[in-house]
Amino acid sequence: MKIAILGAGNVGSALGTRWARLGHTVTFGVRDPHAGKVQALLIAAGGNASATAVAGAATGAEVVALATSWAGAADALSQAGDLSGKVLIDCTNPFVDGALALGHTSSGAERVAGWAPEARVVKAFNTTGSGNMLDADYQGTRPTMFLCGDDAGAKTVTAGLAQELGFEPCDCGPLTVARYLEPMAGLWVQLAYREGLGKDIAFKLLRR
Amino acid sequence: MKIAILGAGNVGSALGTRWARLGHTVTFGVRDPHAGKVQALLIAAGGNASATAVAGAATGAEVVALATSWAGAADALSQAGDLSGKVLIDCTNPFVDGALALGHTSSGAERVAGWAPEARVVKAFNTTGSGNMLDADYQGTRPTMFLCGDDAGAKTVTAGLAQELGFEPCDCGPLTVARYLEPMAGLWVQLAYREGLGKDIAFKLLRR
Repeated sequence: MKIAILGAGNVGSALGTRWARLGHTVTFGVRDPHAGKVQALLIAAGGNASATAVAGAATGAEVVALATSWAGAADALSQAGDLSGKVLIDCTNPFVDGALALGHTSSGAERVAGWAPEARVVKAFNTTGSGNMLDADYQGTRPTMFLCGDDAGAKTVTAGLAQELGFEPCDCGPLTVARYLEPMAGLWVQLAYREGLGKDIAFKLLRR
Repeated sequence: MKIAILGAGNVGSALGTRWARLGHTVTFGVRDPHAGKVQALLIAAGGNASATAVAGAATGAEVVALATSWAGAADALSQAGDLSGKVLIDCTNPFVDGALALGHTSSGAERVAGWAPEARVVKAFNTTGSGNMLDADYQGTRPTMFLCGDDAGAKTVTAGLAQELGFEPCDCGPLTVARYLEPMAGLWVQLAYREGLGKDIAFKLLRR
């Protein structure tokens, strides 16, 4: 697939690198495509990856992954180009100063859908760390990738992309369920950084 | 330990039955101790279990598990008797009409702590179904029991009680983390009932 990644921080870099290596055509939309850090990322990601300015980065992409900071999300979406009918995977969390800036009666994902009303928004890749996106193997066990959205086809595409990275996708329902998935990201951050468990932790939904 | 369970619904019945069978002395505080349903519960729970009115049910208990509906929580706490210094495990979730009635900037657990300021409140047994409390085995894998609170000793006691039921306890930090754990309960309900996965699901924190 042709995938545009908005942002090349930890999450954007991890997702783009893995998907490029798996054979997808990946375009990173970044502030400065010629920055040394971006060039190093492209070398790591291999021949299927390229970098461009955020402006127009979504042009030609079937899937757009929003992987900016929360502060940069609205701007990136407004610059990225026409998102009509595209799968827009919201990987962000509305963290401001280390805490969720909104929740309960709304979610970052619902804000994103408001900023990109023509896109098919899926919330995913927000409940785990970027290290798990680079390597999802837990002694042979696959972590769950919880996702939600209002467009079934967009969720199927996103679930496939999660599965390719080694996750077990779990469709959690409509986009409003992001009100549960974003606090789950808060819990991941709480455990990894504040409780000192470190980044080698991941949530799994057990079934029997 | 001497454990009082406020409420004998699905969660209270499951916890009390297991803990009584494991040798703890369990008192169910219920509206009508002579109701047929309660008598059946006591037969299932065995000789270590008894039932009494909610009024004074916490007298003599070292641990009190709040397992009422959210609507009944404040009343049960005000009637249960002196909670000074006792471990109060809040197993409730602030569900009203199937949705969390509060969150993000507060939590049910923080409300409970306000209603019982003299108790040592721990949030636990709220992120999974009562069926998992009766039988926590997932093909040899133990689900995680996420818990939080501001009293280290009370968390140690609660973690032990979770472990005895077959869960892997996980201390998630201060009581405010209930703002993350209650949405996790929302996700469990969403997946079990609305997405049709059924009640044989449980969250686990993977580590490597």
